[in-house]
Amino acid sequence: MFDRSGLPKSVTVYEVGPRDGLQNEAVILPTTVKAELVKRLLNSGISAIEVASFVRPDIVPALADADELLVELAPMLSTHRMSALVPNQKGLDRALKSGLQEIAVFASATESFARANLNNSVVGSLDIFGPVIRTARDAGIRVRGYISMCFSDPWEGKTATDKVADVAMRLLADGVTEISIGDTIGTATPGEVIDLLDAFDSRGISRSLLAVHFHDTYGQALSNTLTAMLEGITTIDSSIGGLGGCPFAKSATGNLATEDLVWQLHGLGISTGIDFDTLLLTSAWLGLQTGIKVRSKTAIALVGKNS
Amino acid sequence: MFDRSGLPKSVTVYEVGPRDGLQNEAVILPTTVKAELVKRLLNSGISAIEVASFVRPDIVPALADADELLVELAPMLSTHRMSALVPNQKGLDRALKSGLQEIAVFASATESFARANLNNSVVGSLDIFGPVIRTARDAGIRVRGYISMCFSDPWEGKTATDKVADVAMRLLADGVTEISIGDTIGTATPGEVIDLLDAFDSRGISRSLLAVHFHDTYGQALSNTLTAMLEGITTIDSSIGGLGGCPFAKSATGNLATEDLVWQLHGLGISTGIDFDTLLLTSAWLGLQTGIKVRSKTAIALVGKNS
Repeated sequence: MFDRSGLPKSVTVYEVGPRDGLQNEAVILPTTVKAELVKRLLNSGISAIEVASFVRPDIVPALADADELLVELAPMLSTHRMSALVPNQKGLDRALKSGLQEIAVFASATESFARANLNNSVVGSLDIFGPVIRTARDAGIRVRGYISMCFSDPWEGKTATDKVADVAMRLLADGVTEISIGDTIGTATPGEVIDLLDAFDSRGISRSLLAVHFHDTYGQALSNTLTAMLEGITTIDSSIGGLGGCPFAKSATGNLATEDLVWQLHGLGISTGIDFDTLLLTSAWLGLQTGIKVRSKTAIALVGKNS
Repeated sequence: MFDRSGLPKSVTVYEVGPRDGLQNEAVILPTTVKAELVKRLLNSGISAIEVASFVRPDIVPALADADELLVELAPMLSTHRMSALVPNQKGLDRALKSGLQEIAVFASATESFARANLNNSVVGSLDIFGPVIRTARDAGIRVRGYISMCFSDPWEGKTATDKVADVAMRLLADGVTEISIGDTIGTATPGEVIDLLDAFDSRGISRSLLAVHFHDTYGQALSNTLTAMLEGITTIDSSIGGLGGCPFAKSATGNLATEDLVWQLHGLGISTGIDFDTLLLTSAWLGLQTGIKVRSKTAIALVGKNS
């Protein structure tokens, strides 16, 4: 039986398009277009957005303008939840200067991905994040901790739930205020979502601290999101227009599209604070301004053919 | 809470690609390729396939070769579950001649779609189907009854659940052996699926008589399928490679892709009798042979980039 009464009354849609999305697109957008995108997303009622990344500009050229973008967004930082990815102390210094009230760190559950993406071991990278998290918290800044490859990775296959829970415990001990559980290659199915949440339970981690970040590479993202909601998760990551490809699969499909998520949430009577029509207009605007293909099925169905 | 113990142990994947899929593609395949597709699907372990339609050839040219195709498939009709769409008595005569053990009729829950697709009223079309169903059953032939536009239609908006249940009751009274609940334009979200199943319950219709047929036009098909399974549905329609566009929306996305469905089912430990690798090879073969774009995200992720 599907226990509808177990669904949350409201959900926080955490928009990752401007950071996670644009980082994985071939197009580099001007700072003004990025700022306009964030403003339009906020105007549609999106209540949490990851807007930038303070990584080295030569590593992620698409997001090299983080400091300039934050200057443009500065007037809104005290009234809206915005965040940026911070890889190390140097990134944190830039984030603190920007006036952001929240940052994010990006950990890996598997050694192979830690090596490939962070050029470090799992524990070695957590050792770098630890002081960053502590310093941020001491400065009154919230910290989101991403854990990637939570279900499987391209080199090691299935990820043991204990490995993910170990990383989560370490991040929480260091002071993160939210954990985002990432299915980076999109292979997970609903049973695996429950298994991982059970492993978190066994460590006593409150579900109110958890967000889910599903990729739609295998078409499973919304089913997994629905499963997570039935299990009490109320923060869901998604990306406007499905922005962001998947660098670790042959598919062009990465992030769950915000439009498809919101269509389901509103269909279920779950409130998000989002005005769906304004969200659709933002998606259409983004496609026209940037030439980036809209990958939301809902947006394509309602706004126009896309192939 | 997601009650995993409520999921079925096994599911019948009802493959609609060769009929519903090819009917809505721009390409017309040679009879030999269609026969080969059906054989490859059976060889992958698919246990139920709709292979053809006995509509007038001038109305659906892509399926005009139904009689010839059935001659090629004749040796397998006694050992495998295959079906064909039958619009009227004349179609039934062709189906009976073919040796098929199952046929399907295609009803509408809404007056607007009945007019647009069947050139008749809802009741008027059911009056035509009635004798077809009875004659088929008298000949020992099973009959599947599709009901289209079960959740909404492009002209009338939301479909009242009672209208759908009325059509189902009439079809069951005439003798159909299975009802396939169709979300023809793909707008449904999980709560609406439960509402409709509740309406069927209130008429005393056993869930063992029901199948679900979700379109992925709004990206919701797998979530709705998962919901239906939690509610006891064990027959799920899908289409290899996501064959079949959606004639009633701006999107190119119609049927749920069989590969994405099976990925989820096997991930959940639900048995289907399908060998996933053989299914993927069939999907890849179909794309190469026909030039029809594979729309399964899972197939694209595992077999190759498609855009």
